[in-house]
Amino acid sequence: MSNKNLTSWLEVAPASDFSIHNIPFGIYSDQGVNHHACSAIGDYVIDLYELAKHQLLSCDASVLEQLYLNDFISLGKTKTSALRVQLITLLTDPNSRLKNEEAIFNAVFKKQSAVKMLMPVRVGDYTDFYSSMDHATNVGTMFRDPANALLPNWKHLPVGYHGRSSSICVSGHSFFRPKGQQKPADSETPVFGPTKLLDIELETAFVIGKSTSLGDNVTTALADEYIFGMVLFNDWSARDIQTWEYVPLGPFLSKNFASTVSPWIVTLEALEPFRTKGYKQEPKVLPYLQYVGDRNLDIQLDVFIKPKGGEENKIITSNYKYMYWTMEQQLAHHTVNGCNINVGDLMASGTISGPQPHEYGSFLELTWRGTKPLKLNDGSERKFVNDFDTIIIRGHCEKDGMRVGFGECVATALPAK
Amino acid sequence: MSNKNLTSWLEVAPASDFSIHNIPFGIYSDQGVNHHACSAIGDYVIDLYELAKHQLLSCDASVLEQLYLNDFISLGKTKTSALRVQLITLLTDPNSRLKNEEAIFNAVFKKQSAVKMLMPVRVGDYTDFYSSMDHATNVGTMFRDPANALLPNWKHLPVGYHGRSSSICVSGHSFFRPKGQQKPADSETPVFGPTKLLDIELETAFVIGKSTSLGDNVTTALADEYIFGMVLFNDWSARDIQTWEYVPLGPFLSKNFASTVSPWIVTLEALEPFRTKGYKQEPKVLPYLQYVGDRNLDIQLDVFIKPKGGEENKIITSNYKYMYWTMEQQLAHHTVNGCNINVGDLMASGTISGPQPHEYGSFLELTWRGTKPLKLNDGSERKFVNDFDTIIIRGHCEKDGMRVGFGECVATALPAK
Repeated sequence: MSNKNLTSWLEVAPASDFSIHNIPFGIYSDQGVNHHACSAIGDYVIDLYELAKHQLLSCDASVLEQLYLNDFISLGKTKTSALRVQLITLLTDPNSRLKNEEAIFNAVFKKQSAVKMLMPVRVGDYTDFYSSMDHATNVGTMFRDPANALLPNWKHLPVGYHGRSSSICVSGHSFFRPKGQQKPADSETPVFGPTKLLDIELETAFVIGKSTSLGDNVTTALADEYIFGMVLFNDWSARDIQTWEYVPLGPFLSKNFASTVSPWIVTLEALEPFRTKGYKQEPKVLPYLQYVGDRNLDIQLDVFIKPKGGEENKIITSNYKYMYWTMEQQLAHHTVNGCNINVGDLMASGTISGPQPHEYGSFLELTWRGTKPLKLNDGSERKFVNDFDTIIIRGHCEKDGMRVGFGECVATALPAK
Repeated sequence: MSNKNLTSWLEVAPASDFSIHNIPFGIYSDQGVNHHACSAIGDYVIDLYELAKHQLLSCDASVLEQLYLNDFISLGKTKTSALRVQLITLLTDPNSRLKNEEAIFNAVFKKQSAVKMLMPVRVGDYTDFYSSMDHATNVGTMFRDPANALLPNWKHLPVGYHGRSSSICVSGHSFFRPKGQQKPADSETPVFGPTKLLDIELETAFVIGKSTSLGDNVTTALADEYIFGMVLFNDWSARDIQTWEYVPLGPFLSKNFASTVSPWIVTLEALEPFRTKGYKQEPKVLPYLQYVGDRNLDIQLDVFIKPKGGEENKIITSNYKYMYWTMEQQLAHHTVNGCNINVGDLMASGTISGPQPHEYGSFLELTWRGTKPLKLNDGSERKFVNDFDTIIIRGHCEKDGMRVGFGECVATALPAK
């Protein structure tokens, strides 16, 4: 179903993230709907519950009126992929009842601008990787040793750690600037207060689509069966809190005050046409991490900052293809010890940085620890994120006239509470 | 209700963990029951659903037939504490219908040996702290620098990190020895295989009893309102995997293959008589971590190893009172940045070690990295955990003739899959 000649009878602007080639999944609510599973095309959400109620979708409607997509995803990829194909058929067949019966059309299609998107999944466990070589190199250069920026394990395994699920919010939220301990260089003892170095991390995340039992592992070859799709992800970080707290057990309060996900899960099927070659991995990785074929993805990623009442400033132009470790490798590594995974678990990429300065995925790198402030259109400067700044991540794939995008991942920093 | 003169009409052996002073909460199943909330006294579980059905407990029975205690705990401490008092009254009143009506008695009381205890809560997020000074000092001495064993942040904040919820299992399970990357000292590159250094960590954990919203914080003074109770916890660890993977983001696959919790949540009310003085904290901690009163707990903790077909060997005698940071401080720290918590979240102590070698809470410390093997009764030696070894943690408080215990936290290591 990645036929580039597919066309929907419903008009879709060429620049829309939600072409007929996408057909992502999410959960929406509006005045009449508490929470229904939905897809998207052009400017519309497609209410899947209504489609099922009108016998246009081969799915038990009760699965489509849950608060989260977990039960839907748990139907299994055979079913959810078939449903996606059914949707594409409905949207391309000029004789479909969906097109021609006004009552159905009106019940199913709602303007995206008129509805509220909710968290797509209930996240059981959330893992964050650290899989961009340029990011790890930049951080190692700044904080450790430019000559040995990458730690010895980095090229042998996709370094990862557990994060906090409870504070993952769907795009459109705001959060309070976190307070915490920081240890200024000129102070003998730590001080307490709002972070002075609020940062973003440009990431994506994949959503687990199939559970395993404790003791099972998932090979790189089978990993895609366990990955339902991808979202954009902003792993907000407080750099001063992080620097003081992170030894020896890793980041904690510097990360768990908020993370932002985009509401649409773009399926692996929709992303398949945009596969591209992965990094050449030298030294050679252990057998359980080896894979064949082009398993990286060409996803254009852009980040914008919008001061209160101001306009958007593009500050990052990057690409998912800069990932050193693929999702399949990350999942194989995560489960090689028998760790069990559940539908809805989220596994984030880690900050995605490319080799060029405008491709760096955090303020830490963009401004090189604040030494090279960014100049915004309104004349102001940013070393890190200010109160009332809104950060917007956008991402899309484009090839042979097919465009598949993620929509937006947006959040606003409020002053400390 | 911590009156030491309370006596139940149901006979309870003096050494029982489940005296009338305890009345913990859990979930059990047996042939006739899929999952009911329960308490315990002596050798019996008390079926709370049956009590409610017979109008002997002021609780909606539907809350008591859930798979987890989360909904019950979410009723709030005012209600759950009152229910506990009601239970104590039923068990001490010689005229209670529970005592005198055989049909009720038989429906409510089941021999603990005849039922299966289940996971008490659905854990949303699991956090592990690192709050025993002796443990952190031992580890720092072994792996870093004896002269500077504690890292600079350690006495300023309760170091903690996020762990994996999915692999937390209730007492009585077994698990496969995890495989993973290790980097032997004599090898240029990492190797892959079953861990050679499978270890335990003697811990306790507290269960969150009240949720907060993102942006809220919980002060040390109010923390106990948010703590429902405690369990025993074994944070299984693979030391060779840990050493290689943990920089710079902390332990990951070395921990997330299995953790074990005891099935009974001992309430904070039951533990209150056993409060004891905490560590003198020097340097003085920041105001948000300060607290008044005796907030540590005197909980005797013992660990046993039982080889396959063999007998129990006591290998650790320790105490929760060796914790440097209290639960109230841990929770205040965890939320000071606005991180939200949910009912059922688990926050573990970190390995609890006392100052004496027999009080060390891990094989790593007990055998000093394997250099001083333990001698077992059967003549065998242990540097770390062998295949088919069963580890049993027991814990109890005792004072003025009152005994309040946790039961057991048991798991068996199987050979790698």
